[in-house]
Amino acid sequence: MANNIERPLDLLNSSKGKEILVQLKNEKQVTGTLKAFDIHINIVLDNAKELHNGEVKRNVGLTFLRGDTIIFISPASTASSAT
Amino acid sequence: MANNIERPLDLLNSSKGKEILVQLKNEKQVTGTLKAFDIHINIVLDNAKELHNGEVKRNVGLTFLRGDTIIFISPASTASSAT
Amino acid sequence: MANNIERPLDLLNSSKGKEILVQLKNEKQVTGTLKAFDIHINIVLDNAKELHNGEVKRNVGLTFLRGDTIIFISPASTASSAT
Amino acid sequence: MANNIERPLDLLNSSKGKEILVQLKNEKQVTGTLKAFDIHINIVLDNAKELHNGEVKRNVGLTFLRGDTIIFISPASTASSAT
Amino acid sequence: MANNIERPLDLLNSSKGKEILVQLKNEKQVTGTLKAFDIHINIVLDNAKELHNGEVKRNVGLTFLRGDTIIFISPASTASSAT
Amino acid sequence: MANNIERPLDLLNSSKGKEILVQLKNEKQVTGTLKAFDIHINIVLDNAKELHNGEVKRNVGLTFLRGDTIIFISPASTASSAT
Amino acid sequence: MANNIERPLDLLNSSKGKEILVQLKNEKQVTGTLKAFDIHINIVLDNAKELHNGEVKRNVGLTFLRGDTIIFISPASTASSAT
Repeated sequence: MANNIERPLDLLNSSKGKEILVQLKNEKQVTGTLKAFDIHINIVLDNAKELHNGEVKRNVGLTFLRGDTIIFISPASTASSAT
Repeated sequence: MANNIERPLDLLNSSKGKEILVQLKNEKQVTGTLKAFDIHINIVLDNAKELHNGEVKRNVGLTFLRGDTIIFISPASTASSAT
Repeated sequence: MANNIERPLDLLNSSKGKEILVQLKNEKQVTGTLKAFDIHINIVLDNAKELHNGEVKRNVGLTFLRGDTIIFISPASTASSAT
Repeated sequence: MANNIERPLDLLNSSKGKEILVQLKNEKQVTGTLKAFDIHINIVLDNAKELHNGEVKRNVGLTFLRGDTIIFISPASTASSAT
Repeated sequence: MANNIERPLDLLNSSKGKEILVQLKNEKQVTGTLKAFDIHINIVLDNAKELHNGEVKRNVGLTFLRGDTIIFISPASTASSAT
Repeated sequence: MANNIERPLDLLNSSKGKEILVQLKNEKQVTGTLKAFDIHINIVLDNAKELHNGEVKRNVGLTFLRGDTIIFISPASTASSAT
Repeated sequence: MANNIERPLDLLNSSKGKEILVQLKNEKQVTGTLKAFDIHINIVLDNAKELHNGEVKRNVGLTFLRGDTIIFISPASTASSAT
């Protein structure tokens, strides 16, 4: 997957339809299936869950996330816990 | 609903006239019926209620919300509490 | 009133000459009669009062409010306290 | 005075040469005579005084204030203390 | 000096080569001789001193200050302590 | 490496495919292999690890980092601990 | 050195290849040799050291610093400690 990335948005493009982890500036995380994004990094997630310290706090379903609240976005398949 | 979303604003467009949940940067939430939005994600809600930790604090009626105070927007029909 | 709103600024336009409630990012509120606004959501209020937790702290008369300090704006006629 | 205001900057224009109160985001206030302003709401005050909780802390004379530090601006003649 | 100011930047222009006081958003002040400025209010000071609560903390010599960190700028000749 | 740098982005360009250290505004660090960047300093890292005070907190795999959350970026080969 | 400065960026231009002190918004300082800068005040430093309260915390080598995290930049040769 990492081999096809020439511009940062290529990673978001190749993550459409897949589960992603979004780290927010307010210390929370949101996970869900990436449905859409734009150049402001506004994104839409399906089956979104809000987490705090790894624990699910709310199921927020289909969700529009403003790009300026995001620190990083990571396809869930490539992430793992630290040992 | 999730199948018709190609760009993030498509979700807001398909939520017009419906109840939505808005998470603000100041830790509060606002719920109400989405009447209008623009590309800055400024939105107008009808029958808006301000909540803190899930409890209604104020009924603010018809309300204009500035986009730069918003973390996420979720159609209420797709959200549910965490178990 | 809610039926004529197609774009967010329509609500501000229909509120000219009327009492509005403005929630600021610094936890305070300002009420007053809406005299003017622009696309940055800079607004001018007449007979403006600054409130904190619902209590009037200062009468500031005719007042220019910068848009980037605003969370939401609500016509006072549509708001009511939570029960 | 309030009757001639069609756009927010009209209030600043009609306040030139008059005493104004400026509320800053850092909880302080500045008063002085408005000499000039621009579309960024950068302003120049003459005989400016910095106040904290209504008490004069410093006389800063002729002063350039950056617009992005301002919450609101009010002609002093229209303001009064809350009873 | 105040009579020639039609636009805010006129004050900075007439302060070139003179001692100014710069109040920063981080509660500190910088004084020095104004050498140059641009429309972002980026400025260069010579013989700059960083102060905290009126006390010199560091001599930083010739210094480039980013405009977005500035609250206000005041020619030192026009400022005086509050009584 | 330092000799070929005429514009700041030249350093990022010459760091592609190499391990870098990214210091975030939220006091955390992220390390990983730089795959891509754009003019907003949005970057994609492969094998990214989130660190706090030098300790790995999470392996986040392939990661998109928003530029506006970054303080500095340093090729890992040129960094060393303070003695 | 101060005599050739007509615009703020002239100081950065004349500091290329020299040691500079950079004060960050997060209360830390970075020193190093200025290699490059752009109009956003993004800069590249060689042999960069991160300091806190004047003490070296980390050697970060060749480093790209985002302009929006900077308060001021000062050629090290012109700075001295307060007595």
